[in-house]
Amino acid sequence: MALIIQKYGGTSVGGIERIRSVARRVIASASKGDRVVVVVSAMAGETNRLIELGKTVSSRSEGREFDVLLASGEQVTTALLALAIEDAGRKAVSFLGHQVQITTSGAFSKARIESVNTDRTLAALKEGYIVVVAGFQGATREGSITTLGRGGSDITAVALGVALKADRVEFYKDVDGIFTADPSVCPDARMLPRVAYEEMLEMSYLGAKVLHPRCVEMARRNGLPLVVRSSLNFNPGTQVVPEEELMEYAAVSGIVCDKNQVKVSLNGIPDRPGILAGVFTSVAEAEINIDMIVEDTASADGRTAVSFTCGSADLAAAEKAAKKITSAYPGSSFAVRSGLNKLSIVGAGMRLHSGVAAKMFTALAKEGVSVYMVNTSDIKVSCLIEAKYSELAVRTLHEVFELGKAPSGRRRAASRGK
Amino acid sequence: MALIIQKYGGTSVGGIERIRSVARRVIASASKGDRVVVVVSAMAGETNRLIELGKTVSSRSEGREFDVLLASGEQVTTALLALAIEDAGRKAVSFLGHQVQITTSGAFSKARIESVNTDRTLAALKEGYIVVVAGFQGATREGSITTLGRGGSDITAVALGVALKADRVEFYKDVDGIFTADPSVCPDARMLPRVAYEEMLEMSYLGAKVLHPRCVEMARRNGLPLVVRSSLNFNPGTQVVPEEELMEYAAVSGIVCDKNQVKVSLNGIPDRPGILAGVFTSVAEAEINIDMIVEDTASADGRTAVSFTCGSADLAAAEKAAKKITSAYPGSSFAVRSGLNKLSIVGAGMRLHSGVAAKMFTALAKEGVSVYMVNTSDIKVSCLIEAKYSELAVRTLHEVFELGKAPSGRRRAASRGK
Repeated sequence: MALIIQKYGGTSVGGIERIRSVARRVIASASKGDRVVVVVSAMAGETNRLIELGKTVSSRSEGREFDVLLASGEQVTTALLALAIEDAGRKAVSFLGHQVQITTSGAFSKARIESVNTDRTLAALKEGYIVVVAGFQGATREGSITTLGRGGSDITAVALGVALKADRVEFYKDVDGIFTADPSVCPDARMLPRVAYEEMLEMSYLGAKVLHPRCVEMARRNGLPLVVRSSLNFNPGTQVVPEEELMEYAAVSGIVCDKNQVKVSLNGIPDRPGILAGVFTSVAEAEINIDMIVEDTASADGRTAVSFTCGSADLAAAEKAAKKITSAYPGSSFAVRSGLNKLSIVGAGMRLHSGVAAKMFTALAKEGVSVYMVNTSDIKVSCLIEAKYSELAVRTLHEVFELGKAPSGRRRAASRGK
Repeated sequence: MALIIQKYGGTSVGGIERIRSVARRVIASASKGDRVVVVVSAMAGETNRLIELGKTVSSRSEGREFDVLLASGEQVTTALLALAIEDAGRKAVSFLGHQVQITTSGAFSKARIESVNTDRTLAALKEGYIVVVAGFQGATREGSITTLGRGGSDITAVALGVALKADRVEFYKDVDGIFTADPSVCPDARMLPRVAYEEMLEMSYLGAKVLHPRCVEMARRNGLPLVVRSSLNFNPGTQVVPEEELMEYAAVSGIVCDKNQVKVSLNGIPDRPGILAGVFTSVAEAEINIDMIVEDTASADGRTAVSFTCGSADLAAAEKAAKKITSAYPGSSFAVRSGLNKLSIVGAGMRLHSGVAAKMFTALAKEGVSVYMVNTSDIKVSCLIEAKYSELAVRTLHEVFELGKAPSGRRRAASRGK
């Protein structure tokens, strides 16, 4: 008798029919004899509606009272799903964040989970209840309601899974699982039956919006198996497992494309110790979310060039910060390039295959796609390219790395490095 | 430095502009140096919307999960009002039912308040916060969320007022206060500056929808002064005070008309001990809310007639129950009359004035209004009349009892009885 956490996102509970369908699904799992804890988000669009409502009476957009406001969204779906399950003939009980003592830090709107009390949940499961827990919310030790920020409900699901020592956490999404590339861009894209935590983590960081990196990392650290599958069909989905369990893999598992990137280059900056710290303190003060950073080799005149990227939402702030920084160093200048995409290939197999980056650059060059910046880790290579080439580039790399075909080889020994 | 509870109903917080206006009002009170605790309802229409939402996934319409669902409505307005107060420059903090430990019975959808913990509220007031508390909700000792049923937010306000030993509870409504009669029916209707708890209680029971009888009774028992006033203007409103504080009053303070009444008559019922208990057990089993009961003198043949009234929502159930009861007694029969209104005159002064009922019946007879049933207490006389006469009857009694004029006389000694 397994203990399973099932997490349903906003679209999966976005209407009455969808909620009924989730209830049937949950009951089907419970009827197999498993103990089921369900975590739900607010109905699709509801959190944004509440934020807008709050903004109409307040010049702020977060803080203690915003969390009270937003937490009501998950409260509604939690109650509705418990009602729907009961209506379909199974015992169900709903718990809000504070009721299962999801204790968090006091950082409103982006609180961190500190502990989860499992007493009430385990007692309810023992009595045969299906337990429905409101995602995205918790409470401080003093009893103030908090919310967990982006990906909050996914994090609730994993935190409950860890605390309850669940057999797995199943994420029900609008997609069938994790694909080798975006199927709407690449018709050959193939669903991956299994990916490693590390791969999933890179893909999440690189802009695949399927799971939040915080929840993947928490699952990895605790060895909690994850499944990503569709709430619209019964396909098995993608399992996220430790790398050791992957018996076979290719060098590249998937391609991720993150849109709306901006590159800011600062040229002719004096190359002296501490200069980067000064530059990026200024950038951080402007509250710009930096992604990649590259520093070019210093030129002979004792000057250096440094570039960073951020999302286009931060474009104006980045431009202002660049102007401020360069004005402090006579002879320096800055350039901002928007309309870029970050194209990444990810694969745990990269550790075992050489020449992956070279293969990527060659393929892109062949199609006339310029690369504006490169960043790598042991299991990914990211390139900044012009947005207009992104679909072509995804399809090209998908073909070059043969992602449309299921890998047939076993893990093979190979020289390391790209 | 007074401690004041201000309660704002659903219409008063029914939109963003109204919430802003409430915030300004609350701040104006706090700026005078008073400590202010605000209790809010859900936005007008929101509770019904949530009930309908719940009914779409459940064949039930109450229970534990419905309470979780409904409590979200007050949660939203509580947060919005706290945000609006903060935005206008004062410190505010919101508390939900469980956060101020409004501990209730476990009777979901109609829970009774058992205790209120004042620690958090008093601490917040001491730190200079305006405290905004969600009305209508509490939690059981085990931590399940409950709602208090009809008039729940009014009850929250009075329960907090009692627990905090408040100087008064102010109810902000869409009306200026308590009137001698419905001003839309009776153009002469006059606002009463003060009414006795007992009068307010009778008026509430008799269908004046201004305050819930439960909250008036709780305030009376604890000697907590109440004020009913408008959230749309700054008129002083009506004070609800102990009868002893009313220095002057007329025999009749107000006229109340309760619509949609049904009278059920059971004739030829055997007149033997226990028969009424049997009849009304059957009625109670049909979950009919009975209002008045009248039994006629038994006739010489050992048979009796008994009549009761209920709301027209219970018409079908009442008819069914009457059929069942009379079928058990051969020779008995029943009659149901709908389309009736209950017209009542209320006044603590009735205790000191004689001939009030006679004056009422005479005035009604003169206008050709038949009376189908009569019920009295020491401070009211109620008559069942045909609905079509109700406006005429209200205006007639308003004139006969001179309610359009402010009473000039002092309390006078007079023979008791109607």
